[in-house]
Amino acid sequence: MDIRQLFLGDQLNQEVCIRGWVRTFRANRFIAINDGSCLANMQCIVDFEQVSEEVLAEINTGAAVEITGTFVESQGKGQKYEIQASNINILGVSNADDYPIQPKKHSLEFLREKAHLRVRTNTFGAVMRVRAALSFAVHQYFTQSGFYQVHTPIITGSDAEGAGEMFRVTTKDPEQNDDKPDFFGKETNLTVSGQLEAETYAMGLGKVYTFGPTFRAENSNTSRHLAEFWMIEPEVAFNDLEDNMDLAEDFIKSVLGYVLENCKEDLGFLDQRFAKEEAIKPEIKRSPMGLLERLQFVTQNQFKRVSYTEAIDILRNSKPNKKKKFKYNVDGWGIDLQSEHERYLVEKHFTSPVIIFDYPAEIKAFYMRMNEDGKTVRAMDVLFPGVGEMVGGSQREERLDRLVERMKSKDVDLKELWWYLDLRRFGTAKHAGFGLGFERLVLYTTGMSNIRDVIPYPRTPLSAEF
Amino acid sequence: MDIRQLFLGDQLNQEVCIRGWVRTFRANRFIAINDGSCLANMQCIVDFEQVSEEVLAEINTGAAVEITGTFVESQGKGQKYEIQASNINILGVSNADDYPIQPKKHSLEFLREKAHLRVRTNTFGAVMRVRAALSFAVHQYFTQSGFYQVHTPIITGSDAEGAGEMFRVTTKDPEQNDDKPDFFGKETNLTVSGQLEAETYAMGLGKVYTFGPTFRAENSNTSRHLAEFWMIEPEVAFNDLEDNMDLAEDFIKSVLGYVLENCKEDLGFLDQRFAKEEAIKPEIKRSPMGLLERLQFVTQNQFKRVSYTEAIDILRNSKPNKKKKFKYNVDGWGIDLQSEHERYLVEKHFTSPVIIFDYPAEIKAFYMRMNEDGKTVRAMDVLFPGVGEMVGGSQREERLDRLVERMKSKDVDLKELWWYLDLRRFGTAKHAGFGLGFERLVLYTTGMSNIRDVIPYPRTPLSAEF
Repeated sequence: MDIRQLFLGDQLNQEVCIRGWVRTFRANRFIAINDGSCLANMQCIVDFEQVSEEVLAEINTGAAVEITGTFVESQGKGQKYEIQASNINILGVSNADDYPIQPKKHSLEFLREKAHLRVRTNTFGAVMRVRAALSFAVHQYFTQSGFYQVHTPIITGSDAEGAGEMFRVTTKDPEQNDDKPDFFGKETNLTVSGQLEAETYAMGLGKVYTFGPTFRAENSNTSRHLAEFWMIEPEVAFNDLEDNMDLAEDFIKSVLGYVLENCKEDLGFLDQRFAKEEAIKPEIKRSPMGLLERLQFVTQNQFKRVSYTEAIDILRNSKPNKKKKFKYNVDGWGIDLQSEHERYLVEKHFTSPVIIFDYPAEIKAFYMRMNEDGKTVRAMDVLFPGVGEMVGGSQREERLDRLVERMKSKDVDLKELWWYLDLRRFGTAKHAGFGLGFERLVLYTTGMSNIRDVIPYPRTPLSAEF
Repeated sequence: MDIRQLFLGDQLNQEVCIRGWVRTFRANRFIAINDGSCLANMQCIVDFEQVSEEVLAEINTGAAVEITGTFVESQGKGQKYEIQASNINILGVSNADDYPIQPKKHSLEFLREKAHLRVRTNTFGAVMRVRAALSFAVHQYFTQSGFYQVHTPIITGSDAEGAGEMFRVTTKDPEQNDDKPDFFGKETNLTVSGQLEAETYAMGLGKVYTFGPTFRAENSNTSRHLAEFWMIEPEVAFNDLEDNMDLAEDFIKSVLGYVLENCKEDLGFLDQRFAKEEAIKPEIKRSPMGLLERLQFVTQNQFKRVSYTEAIDILRNSKPNKKKKFKYNVDGWGIDLQSEHERYLVEKHFTSPVIIFDYPAEIKAFYMRMNEDGKTVRAMDVLFPGVGEMVGGSQREERLDRLVERMKSKDVDLKELWWYLDLRRFGTAKHAGFGLGFERLVLYTTGMSNIRDVIPYPRTPLSAEF
């Protein structure tokens, strides 16, 4: 029986059997067992006179054990229930000298090198359970809202998506001069986004979403970038940018609400962890809110919505800009916002998630709908404190002539995207969607500071271990 | 408002507005609108004297329209409700001469070339909605059963998984002699299975599952193989093979039960389609059951469980074997079962899903647990009528010495899988899991006959369009 289920208390004073891994063994008497089903360990009380020396010697941190005994209310402090063990069965030993995950604080860097074992720690157990809960919340939200999940292709024959550098997929050996034809008979890459294919499904099923891995072959060694990450991309026929902003906001609030409701124990632990991490930072860098506090803040407050033009005005007149404290000075309309600018807007000016919309066409992708002003497009970014851009989206250009014009001006191959243009030839209609980087959502929700710590096996430049 | 919601009937005699695509327009009076939210079209009644010639001329199959009117009980036969249109707004035209999806029967082959538009047909709309429902059912089943989803890596530095030919992932150009170092600093491939990484998480979180894309670079041009497909892989600490079989059976029954309950309209349509397709087959090739009938049969009957050794006996003594009708004659213990053998067992002998277990070690992967007989391993395959192997799984070899022995005998690199071996060094315990090919489940559930027709954009040898 899972420890999580036992903690519901239904089995009181009954004989139970649990299996899990030893976290600690104190005073030849108290074994703390964790089975991963929840954060809390089950305390098992051993009568050491009834247990052989050999078995006692093998109750080490990391050992797998099966314990039978009576499930009772705990006499001691610190736990509500415990098991009076009547039998201990060592399933798999763990040599205390060799096992890397000892009951002490390990650095996150050290644990990254032990990524196959780090989920056995409190922190990573909590992070990965919250990650799984967020993932389920995504599927539940969209399903209940009438969306259909679409599995868009991972290997793509198109390199026109324009969202970034791509990885090549091949059956040829790049080390050798290899004359055999490639598997697909042409150049193929790993997708950077399922959006274009999702649009084809939105224009048939109405409301769809993707939730799959996407890839960037960019040499970005930062705490916010991965070469392989999971992305959620809803796409809705007949939606405009306003609807799109409403959907993004409602979606984020809903999935955060789900984990606040369903992950109380793990989030409580991560909240304490976050507070400790914040406490050792210099005051100016500290988060103004605790982890739980900021999650509740997001679910309870409206995101600020501000046009790019208004955002530029705020930045231009801001103290750091006037005092030349930004690395990139904000002096005119049309510049791409840098991370420092986004942080100022989100963390200093609005102290709230912010949606910036109507960006200059010049700095945005070809498929975004041109506004009547002829110079801005119906784009939106949702910015979050700490993690920056969580969502990027737009209303799509549904007018064939405008789209062709934009593609030409951005050097996008019209022939390759014949099928994308077909959507504008046959029953075109306004539609909109966005992409949300799932790991950034997990990062924000768990209060971790490096994106490598919220995905089981991170892929980054020069690193593809495990 | 979605047509699916409208059909609930709450808006009776109210003014409503729908948006969707014209399926047919009859007698200048009856427009059938589909918005993808459900199979059924909404019939809209036009008073053509109130509508301009220009608008009437643009109400063609495939056009996107917005229709406002009164939602009433239908006077005619064939539908319960209809809309008395008061206003028609053409959002996007569709030239009848050019639009490929006309209201007639198109071949599946033709529609595969129009994969960006085929979801606008009844068949593909139904298939893809059922696919989405199955996908959600998977997440719901595991979440409610206390499993945590794990996102195992897609790009893998390991080629030791041994499940098949792999695609190379590289930032080098295989057409050029390129001296720059590769992105990850070593050879990387697309994963063929998340199992080994999922095992690391099962040994920390207890019960986990993956649901992600996997890849095979095999030149298999069959109706049951894809180069890119989605796989579901649960992995459970402390489970043995018996538990694993129970889980596979319960899981499949549960997700089929979900769609039987939640996709009645689409499955009803696919049931009729299946009956028509079967009717034109020669009698000997016809399915003994209808589509809905066979889905209900699976949910209501126990899967047959038979050891490999028993299966060989059945096959050896079977009529087709004695009459030399099999392409591969079954004459001795140890052979790998061919598709014709599996079909005989499933479709002729048992007429039911079958679980075959305890296969010869020789023909199975290195990580499967050796039985006491020293020649069979705790493997299992779940075979389904029509689609063959739906599930492959095993209890894993948890004993370090046995595992090392097996890896050596199968030439698997011990150094590369140091982390996998670590699981057997620190707190090892029995555990088991399986992989289910999601498209084969969709194939079985929808009664389609080619796996290319149950995934939006199929990837097969020489084909990576869209």
